[in-house]
Amino acid sequence: MNVPIARRMADLTSSDVRELLKITQRPEIISFAGGLPAPELFPIGELAEHARSVLLDDGARALQYSTTEGHPPLRRWIAARMSQVWQARYEPDEILITTGSQQGLDLTAKLFVDEGDVVFCESPTYLAALGAFKVCGPRFVEIPTDEDGIDLGAFDRALAQHRPKLIYVIPNGQNPSGRTWSTERRERFMERINAHHIPVIEDDAYVEVRLDESPAPPSLRAFDRDNLVVCLGTFSKVLSPGVRVGWVAAERAWLERYVILKQSADLHTSSLDQMLVMRWLESGGFDENLRRIRSVYRERRDVMMAALTAELPPGAHFAKPAGGLFVWLELPAGVRARELLVRCLAHQVAFVPGDSFFPNGGRHDTARLNFSNMPPDRIRQGVARLGVAMREALDEAKTKATTTV
Amino acid sequence: MNVPIARRMADLTSSDVRELLKITQRPEIISFAGGLPAPELFPIGELAEHARSVLLDDGARALQYSTTEGHPPLRRWIAARMSQVWQARYEPDEILITTGSQQGLDLTAKLFVDEGDVVFCESPTYLAALGAFKVCGPRFVEIPTDEDGIDLGAFDRALAQHRPKLIYVIPNGQNPSGRTWSTERRERFMERINAHHIPVIEDDAYVEVRLDESPAPPSLRAFDRDNLVVCLGTFSKVLSPGVRVGWVAAERAWLERYVILKQSADLHTSSLDQMLVMRWLESGGFDENLRRIRSVYRERRDVMMAALTAELPPGAHFAKPAGGLFVWLELPAGVRARELLVRCLAHQVAFVPGDSFFPNGGRHDTARLNFSNMPPDRIRQGVARLGVAMREALDEAKTKATTTV
Repeated sequence: MNVPIARRMADLTSSDVRELLKITQRPEIISFAGGLPAPELFPIGELAEHARSVLLDDGARALQYSTTEGHPPLRRWIAARMSQVWQARYEPDEILITTGSQQGLDLTAKLFVDEGDVVFCESPTYLAALGAFKVCGPRFVEIPTDEDGIDLGAFDRALAQHRPKLIYVIPNGQNPSGRTWSTERRERFMERINAHHIPVIEDDAYVEVRLDESPAPPSLRAFDRDNLVVCLGTFSKVLSPGVRVGWVAAERAWLERYVILKQSADLHTSSLDQMLVMRWLESGGFDENLRRIRSVYRERRDVMMAALTAELPPGAHFAKPAGGLFVWLELPAGVRARELLVRCLAHQVAFVPGDSFFPNGGRHDTARLNFSNMPPDRIRQGVARLGVAMREALDEAKTKATTTV
Repeated sequence: MNVPIARRMADLTSSDVRELLKITQRPEIISFAGGLPAPELFPIGELAEHARSVLLDDGARALQYSTTEGHPPLRRWIAARMSQVWQARYEPDEILITTGSQQGLDLTAKLFVDEGDVVFCESPTYLAALGAFKVCGPRFVEIPTDEDGIDLGAFDRALAQHRPKLIYVIPNGQNPSGRTWSTERRERFMERINAHHIPVIEDDAYVEVRLDESPAPPSLRAFDRDNLVVCLGTFSKVLSPGVRVGWVAAERAWLERYVILKQSADLHTSSLDQMLVMRWLESGGFDENLRRIRSVYRERRDVMMAALTAELPPGAHFAKPAGGLFVWLELPAGVRARELLVRCLAHQVAFVPGDSFFPNGGRHDTARLNFSNMPPDRIRQGVARLGVAMREALDEAKTKATTTV
């Protein structure tokens, strides 16, 4: 068909990684590629009873159109939780319920980004955020990060060169790097934000999935002098991603506009799903469930760290994530992630090559590993396979280098 | 805050009508303003049991991330239904499940529309479709319609002047006009589409809500020679709008791109809601429920038609809709809809002024009335109040006219 479509579609293609990863769904493959929560932690029995009772008690509301802003008790719960636990103060009418926090990214792009605008982001950053922003045609400027968070020197240099429309960051348990920003880095970052007046999109998908025993550092919102911080939250990691309930928290003038965009995007988020989540929260399941999630994921993280230390050849680098679902791997010199992935698939183990997470093309010697989705034994076995594949790749790289010399 | 946002936001404002209609939610007001299904027709008890059993039987799947394309059995059911009943042939892999059919509009705008592109639509047309398209900055060209559908002469003249990126139409029980296109009009329309190669977005929200006894005319898809017709469907009118389950049906190359855009928009539609809808469909509830919906809405339509005939002053025009949820009203000369609405609110009855449905500014002597959301008695009472308000408005208009002369 020779029918013109929108220009933006030229930049929006299904990634080759996504195609490759379809293979990883075979049961014989141990896949560290996904980012799925552990299904055995879903409170299935409780939710089954809650779903039934929400419908029997209040079905005419759960099945009807509802307001775009979201279920009022849920907005109140979220505002209270953010204020009390995240150190991110918002009022209930500064919360918009979204269809997963992915929708928060889509609406953010529409609210802020015109074609050609500069968007700052961490390097690396969350792949699906890039997809959402790309719909509005920005130029991405990547700001490097280290183990303490964003590189402030690099940020200053970028600010001297560009006027960004917004900056997108994931300060807790970042996807894909696993990094959590230090409190000090947050403060220094926000000094610059307050001085330059740049909207900050703080993606808080992993803030509750704190794995270290120490409390998480305060939200960037705690240092936000002029209402510049927009927080995106989600129930995907602390209850269920399948119900697609997330939120945007933003000051009122912005939130009103998010609401207008949300209305055009899908009218409102499932009334049933919102009321089901709220019923579960009211039942008091949240804290207990979160304790289980943290404890199980902490064990899995620790198992993965130990296995990586034991199994990977010298030259592979990784750090212990304080939160989130991922470990970031820097491969030994000479090993390319995509070639390694092909080799790994032969050994029945999979990961995501890291270059996908760099918007302007990236480092081919990096990889993302997920540890939340499988039990310790499988993690050990998978990392052992990864170690074997990596040693093979390293041997071949050395042979090639020798031959070339 | 003096922070720049995206240019598109200048065109995306909360409508004053939306603000006005907040008043209509007071219980003492009989509101014909909404577009809500009758909640007493929701199969609440059945859905409560199905929700429970979906979670108990298959909770790990219902609560987990799922594929962007949607729940495979649901895609198969939809393809079969469209082929068998709508005369719209699509394969299951040409169906994408969306978060309500509103999301189909959002994705359509992103797929086809660059800033400044021409989008053809009926005049009047669905308000929230305009909101979705506006995000991508098109120019709207309105094609008038009559009781048999789109005005082909006007369409030909528009085609001579413009090259539209797409045309958006609602051929069954249109919102707001209530009109259903005749078979002959559909055929002639599609001859032009096939000749000019223009993508057609057929919004089929009301195709199942056929109120006349005769079968609905075939889908435009039945006359689609080159895969130019994209159909948008929904369970909002035949089961529940609260669960936000709709779909896009399009040929494969387009569907693949819809999937990419959907992934950036919200990853996927609620797994739980999709599986709940499918469980209900499998239980065989659909046909019986649809019979009830059609029969109840038919009665309400007939009650409204009789009341309008009895109560409205001469000069008010309306036609009996063969499907959908709305009656379109042309007001007597001299009566302006927004002024009438203010008067009606004093009489505790409400409607939507019709001008909102014209993208380029519209006819101030039109109004949309909904008949699905209240029982016959309330319809009669509300129309009686409307009649009183209209006579008052008419008297005042005459007095003014006399005074002016």
